[in-house]
Amino acid sequence: MAEKRFGKQTIKLSNPPSIISTATIVGPAEGKGPLKDYFDQILEDDKWGQESWEKCEAKLQEEAIRMALMNASLSEGSVDYLFAGDLLNQIISSSYAARQLSIPYFGLYGACSTMTESLSLGSMAVDGGFADNVVCVTSSHFSTAERQFRFPLEFGSQRPFSSQRTVTGAGACIVSSVGNGPYVTYVTTGRVIDAGIIDANNMGAAMAPAAVDTIEAHFRDLNRDPSYYDIIATGDLGKIGHDIAEEILKKDGFKFQEGVFKDCGKLIYKKDQPVFSGGSGCACSATVTYGHFFKEMKKKKLNKILVVATGALMSPMSYQQKESIPSVAHAVSIEA
Amino acid sequence: MAEKRFGKQTIKLSNPPSIISTATIVGPAEGKGPLKDYFDQILEDDKWGQESWEKCEAKLQEEAIRMALMNASLSEGSVDYLFAGDLLNQIISSSYAARQLSIPYFGLYGACSTMTESLSLGSMAVDGGFADNVVCVTSSHFSTAERQFRFPLEFGSQRPFSSQRTVTGAGACIVSSVGNGPYVTYVTTGRVIDAGIIDANNMGAAMAPAAVDTIEAHFRDLNRDPSYYDIIATGDLGKIGHDIAEEILKKDGFKFQEGVFKDCGKLIYKKDQPVFSGGSGCACSATVTYGHFFKEMKKKKLNKILVVATGALMSPMSYQQKESIPSVAHAVSIEA
Repeated sequence: MAEKRFGKQTIKLSNPPSIISTATIVGPAEGKGPLKDYFDQILEDDKWGQESWEKCEAKLQEEAIRMALMNASLSEGSVDYLFAGDLLNQIISSSYAARQLSIPYFGLYGACSTMTESLSLGSMAVDGGFADNVVCVTSSHFSTAERQFRFPLEFGSQRPFSSQRTVTGAGACIVSSVGNGPYVTYVTTGRVIDAGIIDANNMGAAMAPAAVDTIEAHFRDLNRDPSYYDIIATGDLGKIGHDIAEEILKKDGFKFQEGVFKDCGKLIYKKDQPVFSGGSGCACSATVTYGHFFKEMKKKKLNKILVVATGALMSPMSYQQKESIPSVAHAVSIEA
Repeated sequence: MAEKRFGKQTIKLSNPPSIISTATIVGPAEGKGPLKDYFDQILEDDKWGQESWEKCEAKLQEEAIRMALMNASLSEGSVDYLFAGDLLNQIISSSYAARQLSIPYFGLYGACSTMTESLSLGSMAVDGGFADNVVCVTSSHFSTAERQFRFPLEFGSQRPFSSQRTVTGAGACIVSSVGNGPYVTYVTTGRVIDAGIIDANNMGAAMAPAAVDTIEAHFRDLNRDPSYYDIIATGDLGKIGHDIAEEILKKDGFKFQEGVFKDCGKLIYKKDQPVFSGGSGCACSATVTYGHFFKEMKKKKLNKILVVATGALMSPMSYQQKESIPSVAHAVSIEA
C-alpha cells in the first residue's frame, strides 16, 4: 500500500500500464488547425451523415474506440473495461457508443476533465490487476455542447472574447498490462475547487484554480519540480485561464522553462480561427494528447509529459439557481 | 492477474475491502415505508430548508458523506477518494457536495446503477492498493428527477401504472482496507443492453434485460448458482421489471429459493403508497442496501448478498430523437 501512495492525492502505478494504441477523430474546424496531420481522421461535415449532432457524437466515440482496437490488433472481446464519458446530459454519447460494443462499461462525468479521469481509472484497473486491456475514451461536439450549455446555434448569439470553442472530436486509447509504452506512471486526482466564477462564457477563469491545485499537489506529493517534464499541458483553460494558472503557479514558486507549460485549448486551433480564448471540451485534451503528444512520444521527441485535463462542472440548472461554477482537474504522468 | 479475473465480467477482490460504515437519509415518503427504522435520518420536508430541490439533493449527499465519516470515526483527510454520482444533468448533486469536502473526486454516471458502479470502483481502488479509505455515495430526489426526466410537478401529469417513484434520499458508505466486514468480495460489471423500449414511464421493462445479463454473467463467471446467496437484490426494476427479470432468469434455468430474489424498488414503499410499480433512483438501491441489508448483515441475519443496481441510461434529448433506452446493471457481492 504505502509504496503506491505519495502524499494526499498522488498514486504511483507500480507496474506502469502501457498506452498501446490511440485513435483520434476531429471535426472540420479542428482539421484546419496546426495539429491536423496528427489526427487519424478528419470529418468533412460535422454531422457525419447522422440525423443529429448528438448521433454524430456517439458515432465519433464508437468509431474512435473501434479504430483504437484496430490499431492495437485487439477485438472487443479482449478488452475488460470501457471507461467513457462526455459532456452531454446523461453522457448519451458514451452510453450509445457502449451499446454498440459488448464491453463492461463504467460511465464517467467530470466535464472536460473526463479525459484524464478515464485514463486514471483505466490505468488503476490495469495496475491493480483487474484488467489486461481497457479502453479510455471521451468525446465532445461544438454543436451539441452549444445548444445544451449556452444557446441554440440558430439563435446566433454573439460570443464574448472570453468564450472558447468546444472541440468536435473523440479520442480513445488502449491501456494494457503489457506493451512498450509510453507508460502511465503517476496519477494525481483533483478536488473540487470553486473560485466563485458565475460566467459560463469564462470557463478558463473558473477552471484555472482547480488546475493549479492539482498541479501543485502533484509536485508537492512527489517532491518534484516542473523541470522534470518536457511538457505540462492543461486541458482546456484557453488563453485567459492558462495565463491565470501560470501567474498563480509562478507566484507560488513554480518555474517553467520556455515552452513547457502548455494548454491543449491553445494548441488545437490556428491564430486566425474565430475561437476567441481557444478550444475546450473533453475532445480537446483527448485529441491533442492521443494525437499530438502520443505520436511525438512514439517518435522519441517527447519523453515525459504531465496531462492535466480540466473540467468546469457547470450546469444550466445550477446557473439558473445562481450557483457559481465548481471545477476539477486530474493529472496523469505519461513517460516513455 | 489471473487470480483476480473470473470469466469475462467478474473480478475477485483478493483482499476483500470492508464496508466499515454507512449512512442513509431519506425523504418523507420513504420515511413512511416499511424500512423506516433502518434509515439514519428521515426528512420532514423534501426541501430540507434549501431554496430548491436541487440544493436539497446536494445537501442530502453531503450530509450522508459526513454521517458515514462520523459513523466510522474518520475525518475528511483520512479518505483517499470520493466516488459519487446522481441522476441530474452534469451530476450537480455530487459536484456541489464534493465542493464542500476536500477529498479527491471521481464523478460517475450510470443512472441508478451508479450505486454499485461507485461501490465497484471504490472497492477496486482499495483492493488495488491505491487507497486505505474511500467514500462511495449516490443520491436521487423525486422532485428533481421528475422535472428533469418527465414533466414539471406543477403540470400535474397523470402517471401510468408502469411508472415508478424516484426515491428521495442519499446513501453513503466507507470502504476500507481494514475492518470487520461485511466485505466486498466480487464485482461483476455490466455491458450496455438495449431491449428497444422507448417508454420513459416503463423503465423497469427497459432495465430488466440488463439486470438479467449481469446476473447471468456473475453466475457463469463464478460457476455459482443463486442458492449461494441469502438475498439477490436488483436495484429498481419495480414490480413490472422484476417480474420480467425473474421470468427470463427462470426460463434460462436459474432457480431461486422463496424470498431470495428481491428488488429494492419493491421493498422501500408500503403497498398502499401511491408509487405504482415501485421505487427507483440511485437512492433506492443505496438506502435499501446501506440501510436495510447492511444493518441486517451486521446483526448476522444476512450473510451473503448480491446487489445488482440497475440503470436506465435514458435522456430527454435522446428520447426526443426517437432513440430507445439503453440500460446497464452492475453487481457487487457483499459477504459477512
